[in-house]
Amino acid sequence: MVNEKQVLGIPYGTRDFLPTEAAGKRAIETKLAALFALWGYDEVVTPTIEYFDTLTMDSGRQLAPQLFKLFDKGGKTLALRHEMTTPIARVVASRLKDAPLPLKLSYISSVFRSEQSQMGRQCEFYQAGVELIGSASATADAEVLALAIQSLLRAGLKDFSVCLGQVEFVTGIMQQYRLDEQTQQTLKEALEQHDLVAYDATVASLDLAAAAKQNLRQLPVLSGGEETLQQAYASALGEQSRRALDNLSAIYHLLASYGLEKYVRFDLGLIRDFSYYTGMVFEVYTAGLGFPLAGGGRYDHMLSDFGCACPATGFALGIERVLLALERQGIGAPEPAKDVYIGYSAGQEAAAVNRATSLRSEGKVAELALAPQTKAEAEASRHAKGYATLVYLE
Amino acid sequence: MVNEKQVLGIPYGTRDFLPTEAAGKRAIETKLAALFALWGYDEVVTPTIEYFDTLTMDSGRQLAPQLFKLFDKGGKTLALRHEMTTPIARVVASRLKDAPLPLKLSYISSVFRSEQSQMGRQCEFYQAGVELIGSASATADAEVLALAIQSLLRAGLKDFSVCLGQVEFVTGIMQQYRLDEQTQQTLKEALEQHDLVAYDATVASLDLAAAAKQNLRQLPVLSGGEETLQQAYASALGEQSRRALDNLSAIYHLLASYGLEKYVRFDLGLIRDFSYYTGMVFEVYTAGLGFPLAGGGRYDHMLSDFGCACPATGFALGIERVLLALERQGIGAPEPAKDVYIGYSAGQEAAAVNRATSLRSEGKVAELALAPQTKAEAEASRHAKGYATLVYLE
Repeated sequence: MVNEKQVLGIPYGTRDFLPTEAAGKRAIETKLAALFALWGYDEVVTPTIEYFDTLTMDSGRQLAPQLFKLFDKGGKTLALRHEMTTPIARVVASRLKDAPLPLKLSYISSVFRSEQSQMGRQCEFYQAGVELIGSASATADAEVLALAIQSLLRAGLKDFSVCLGQVEFVTGIMQQYRLDEQTQQTLKEALEQHDLVAYDATVASLDLAAAAKQNLRQLPVLSGGEETLQQAYASALGEQSRRALDNLSAIYHLLASYGLEKYVRFDLGLIRDFSYYTGMVFEVYTAGLGFPLAGGGRYDHMLSDFGCACPATGFALGIERVLLALERQGIGAPEPAKDVYIGYSAGQEAAAVNRATSLRSEGKVAELALAPQTKAEAEASRHAKGYATLVYLE
Repeated sequence: MVNEKQVLGIPYGTRDFLPTEAAGKRAIETKLAALFALWGYDEVVTPTIEYFDTLTMDSGRQLAPQLFKLFDKGGKTLALRHEMTTPIARVVASRLKDAPLPLKLSYISSVFRSEQSQMGRQCEFYQAGVELIGSASATADAEVLALAIQSLLRAGLKDFSVCLGQVEFVTGIMQQYRLDEQTQQTLKEALEQHDLVAYDATVASLDLAAAAKQNLRQLPVLSGGEETLQQAYASALGEQSRRALDNLSAIYHLLASYGLEKYVRFDLGLIRDFSYYTGMVFEVYTAGLGFPLAGGGRYDHMLSDFGCACPATGFALGIERVLLALERQGIGAPEPAKDVYIGYSAGQEAAAVNRATSLRSEGKVAELALAPQTKAEAEASRHAKGYATLVYLE
């Protein structure tokens, strides 16, 4: 009667969270919602479905093929949101445009991308993050970074690195050597894909002095601790790149006030895959996962694209990725607590209901049997369902 | 440069939750997740996107025009889930088919329906609910009803009514008088739409004895307290209808053990708009809202449609509807707590960070200024952002 394969399957790139997985997700989301609130960030919730034109305003253009499209009754193109920064920029530029700045906003949401094959990437996945809108200061960037680090710590991770760079450092060097737009783009794509072979080949092909080529070649390997900044300053650099280093230095020292600088390593060739970033950018990595757990940066132009000029910075964290990292690192997500199973003999239904009500009012997780059982049956049910204690009424 | 109307708007039937609204939603969801867990219900999370064929397996057929459709790369038809009972039935029939019964599962999810114009109904809205799978007992129905009532109480509502009926009571009466399928359908649709004029006109047109017509005419008005059951028993009834009344009576007495019977009124003509219900059905109403806050019932055939024969019962509650009811009844959703705004003069950034860290570790919601301010500026910021206290470092 039923084509079970068809109706029991789920679409490519989607998943079910069974009880233990869903409990891990719920636990992390609850912790992050509380943490964001503690730092003065207000949650906003935006629609899963937006106008295609809204989502492709800025970053979206390059991502347009990744959008799940659908159509409204009037034939307008809609799409499932592929990230949360653009929808939040829309909210800020419309319904929050008169709110006092800076605005500190947070979200915990599902996002959708139709073409995903990379490990750890689903077509639907969950992100938690913040957007800090209305401040161009290093203090704002440092706050966002500190909150990203605290989020991962709160989720239970101990061992991770924040790779920190700044878009203008890379752009500054390239402009200093008057590279044309096409060459800059080719080099940035190689950096983004960590393709050092392609990067070096492009650099080698350029008509530049040896010292300039050396500086460009150094870019992807300018990474490490605080000494990396000094190493970068020592290169002959233009004004734009030097200002980028000054900003990174200020952010680093502010992070030290938070006691969180130990999580940071500089990666001055870092390029992120959203074109909207304009300043500090970062990605968080952990041992054993080849993709970032979290990432973010400054995006000072997006809001002006929505008609509301305003600097902004933020981060997003991948909930499934954090769950995967916790699992790989043997940091168990909490199992759902199971305290008491209540079994009863015939005629004891009302007494069993009373006992369940009383246990639950004490905060105990209590499951009530749905039919009379013998004590042995009740004990078997308790065991099968993983409850710690049996209460049996006879 | 920007067509603001286009990019700043959102699709018909969707909404943004601004901070106060999102805080209300988060607070209710957190309370319900904790309540469901306390009763031994495990959360599951299913994909937003399912195969169209899965969602239209059972109830979905009549709702197919309401589904938001989209397509995967292979041209298969996908759709956004329009309710959670069908996806959970799919999970139970596939990945949980070997789990010990009864299964107690919960969810808090967005669902989507493309044709919605009714007040309080969005094209995207949020539902919280449970499914209790593997028990045909009145105890199971009573547990689901009790948990629905406790959910509304936990959300902060005090004044609401649970209208309780049973599908077989209506069907039993209609079959007793040998009404044909088409007539039964016409009468059920009139009941579902509360269209008493159409209902009475159809009854009047039937070729039945006066007493039979009187019994049918009585159906939509058989509502009220415990005495309604006695009134219904007193009518000349067939076996099926009497068994339905026996079941409702058992549920009612179990609800009295929970101390929750006062929220229940019988509505023996109640028909819900999902065709999959097979037993007890209920809807919860509150003053001033013309649509149910919550609803549910028994659906004993859906799982067998998925190849896994198993009785089941459950409920869903509309998060936005509960928020609207709270607002209309003057029961404020909690504003996000705002404890301390921290301002500082130039050079005090590190001290301010330390103070913020320390306040947050005490559980205080603390917002850090992002640039030095005078004390008067800091006080103005504190006021504009709604923080209770200013800490100023100079």
